[in-house]
Amino acid sequence: MKITIIGSGNVATYFAIAFKSKGYNIAQVYSPHILLANELAERVQATPCSAIEEISPDSDFYLIAINDDALKSFSEKFRVKDKIVMHTSGFHEINVLKNVSLNYGVFYPLQTLNKNISLPTEPFPICIEASDDETLKKIKELAYSIDGDVHIILSQRRKVLHVAAVFANNFSNHLYSLAEKILKKENISFGLLRPLIKSTAENVMHRSPSEVQTGPAKRGDEEILKAHLEILKDDPELKTIYELISSGIRKNVHNS
Amino acid sequence: MKITIIGSGNVATYFAIAFKSKGYNIAQVYSPHILLANELAERVQATPCSAIEEISPDSDFYLIAINDDALKSFSEKFRVKDKIVMHTSGFHEINVLKNVSLNYGVFYPLQTLNKNISLPTEPFPICIEASDDETLKKIKELAYSIDGDVHIILSQRRKVLHVAAVFANNFSNHLYSLAEKILKKENISFGLLRPLIKSTAENVMHRSPSEVQTGPAKRGDEEILKAHLEILKDDPELKTIYELISSGIRKNVHNS
Repeated sequence: MKITIIGSGNVATYFAIAFKSKGYNIAQVYSPHILLANELAERVQATPCSAIEEISPDSDFYLIAINDDALKSFSEKFRVKDKIVMHTSGFHEINVLKNVSLNYGVFYPLQTLNKNISLPTEPFPICIEASDDETLKKIKELAYSIDGDVHIILSQRRKVLHVAAVFANNFSNHLYSLAEKILKKENISFGLLRPLIKSTAENVMHRSPSEVQTGPAKRGDEEILKAHLEILKDDPELKTIYELISSGIRKNVHNS
Repeated sequence: MKITIIGSGNVATYFAIAFKSKGYNIAQVYSPHILLANELAERVQATPCSAIEEISPDSDFYLIAINDDALKSFSEKFRVKDKIVMHTSGFHEINVLKNVSLNYGVFYPLQTLNKNISLPTEPFPICIEASDDETLKKIKELAYSIDGDVHIILSQRRKVLHVAAVFANNFSNHLYSLAEKILKKENISFGLLRPLIKSTAENVMHRSPSEVQTGPAKRGDEEILKAHLEILKDDPELKTIYELISSGIRKNVHNS
């Protein structure tokens, strides 16, 4: 089985290595930046290329793992007859690939992948979708073969899942940044918060987050809420987020 | 060494068990609710009591682990001559205890503790403060003896740390709740997000959150931001939080 990887970023790197480690042959790695193509190609013993017309049409699968805003223009330029072409975007509909091949699909990893940090070793969801049943079967087998937790999720629902992932991942991380910013003013190390951050995530591994919510907003402790806003008063962003999220937590208490 | 535990909630339970497991004698457990006092007292072979005047004055340490809004009124009623009395609040100043004993301090666990979920087994910061050097030394030894990561942090800075902890813990957890709410409408299981939530926390264990920030707001992908707001348009809370945090992430990009 031959796979061509389109892209050289975090998602491309993760899957190229995962496929290679399961015995797949990575035929080519494409990136418009030849140095990046070289780097990943070398890791998975593939041929690098940086021009779309150099991408060989005889792989079994083509995995497109490029930025969301580059996907459309790439899809307008790339053509293979009937080999399976998949994109990895949480956002774009499957149909963005409809003119690329007769057989196409989606291979969306619901995980944060960063090639500079250690790659995840535990299974995570791979959300798949395909142009037809036969292609779906093949994509499903591919996802299982790299130990994916496979879910069939169509484009409209995947988009909603993607929004939820932005809250759970990007937005949580921004809150960590804000916590770091608050500490910086007092020269307190962010490291002090790390055990708390880890436990906060672990607490929802077997429970619903609304069940484990704690804190002054949850308890309705007005004295603390007021004092915290006083501490944040010189930073409108922090103050607004504090008020907004606290009132959201309060509302949940009253609705439950 | 004898320790009396004031309270029967999450923090009281954690410390009572931690002290007991290190060989301390837990003399009494006080709670105004005798059934709760009984329950914890039984776990640590202590005597339960539910009236402040029944609290025996001959323990070496008194750990007050009650709700922030109950701490002041308790401190007005409780008196011991010179035994070490500590509170566990991130918010209240050390001075709230100044009339309780000649020797007093703070023993603030920077961790989320929930007696109904498994208690943390890895070390976490215990932020301490004391009325005098001799008391500080004794409190420090106590914290080290239960494998605490001990930090001396005075009241004003502890208050700031507490605000940061609210962002990192309470507010992150609320974002998980919002993600769950988004998924519910489409009947998608929150479980799909769990590996992502775990990795999001793990990614900041050795890095700064601003270094590992990702997502459409970070990339400035206007098409996705617009489409996400369209998906959230019927829920003003979700929409406002999406806009506010996205613009915060954008601002960080431009400032860095």
